[in-house]
Amino acid sequence: MAAALTLTRDTVRAEWVDYNGHLRDAYYLLLFSYAVDALMDHLGLDEAERALSQRSIYTLEVHLNYLRELKLGTELRVDVQLLAHDSKRLQVYLTLHRGEELEAAAASEQMLLHVDTEQGCAAPFSAALLARVEALAVAHADLPKPAYAGRQIGLPVQRGVMAA
Amino acid sequence: MAAALTLTRDTVRAEWVDYNGHLRDAYYLLLFSYAVDALMDHLGLDEAERALSQRSIYTLEVHLNYLRELKLGTELRVDVQLLAHDSKRLQVYLTLHRGEELEAAAASEQMLLHVDTEQGCAAPFSAALLARVEALAVAHADLPKPAYAGRQIGLPVQRGVMAA
Repeated sequence: MAAALTLTRDTVRAEWVDYNGHLRDAYYLLLFSYAVDALMDHLGLDEAERALSQRSIYTLEVHLNYLRELKLGTELRVDVQLLAHDSKRLQVYLTLHRGEELEAAAASEQMLLHVDTEQGCAAPFSAALLARVEALAVAHADLPKPAYAGRQIGLPVQRGVMAA
Repeated sequence: MAAALTLTRDTVRAEWVDYNGHLRDAYYLLLFSYAVDALMDHLGLDEAERALSQRSIYTLEVHLNYLRELKLGTELRVDVQLLAHDSKRLQVYLTLHRGEELEAAAASEQMLLHVDTEQGCAAPFSAALLARVEALAVAHADLPKPAYAGRQIGLPVQRGVMAA
């Protein structure tokens, strides 16, 4: 049965919480950022390969929904679902969970770009990397549509204003 | 003349950069997070008032576009434009800039929620807080529409796939 890929496990650390002992918003993204590092490893683009090939994966855009507060010491995991890809980009959906819970404490849709770090420009995936991306796409093809993907930010339309 | 409000000034710190000396994606959001703290101060909801009133502002959703790499030691500022509000929510647009540059190195649209921290639920702004929000809305009413607001993430439609 198809399942999202668990990338990382961590714990809410003391340096990540505010005075109330809750995880600060930016550190949710740090947890997702470490998970993208792990995704690169999974795809064969680990630190050694990044240095050797002068290729890496950069973040173009992040959307992040906060669903639950998380307290100091809480055990966490990050799962990923590959939503789409082309010759140089990955559209991924990451979810942060407490322990083994199915329910997400946060969700993040991200657009990632494969880059030539020497030239500072986008670069197509190598054949080996693309093969691993395509294997992940096949593994994730039947996963359900994520709850927090494709979102736009906005307040509900104020009818009074619209009618004016 | 209308202008966005500068909230914070900072510098890319050693603990925020990767092995290449570039600011890691999550720390762009930490800079925006500190700016939202400063926005709370600007609106009169500073740390003392948050503790006294048991009210605070939480992040519901973040969209973040990465436009430039930023190196260790670079001087930065964060500006904010209030896009919309209702009785308990603020829709804001934050931009991160190098020094005094007009061009943004990153842009973040965010939905923020005023909460009762004791009850753990949404709460309408106090009259005093709402007056300050409305003053900011008036000051920002004539600012141009931001370049990276209202975004959805997605890869361009692949025509071959659509025709299949």
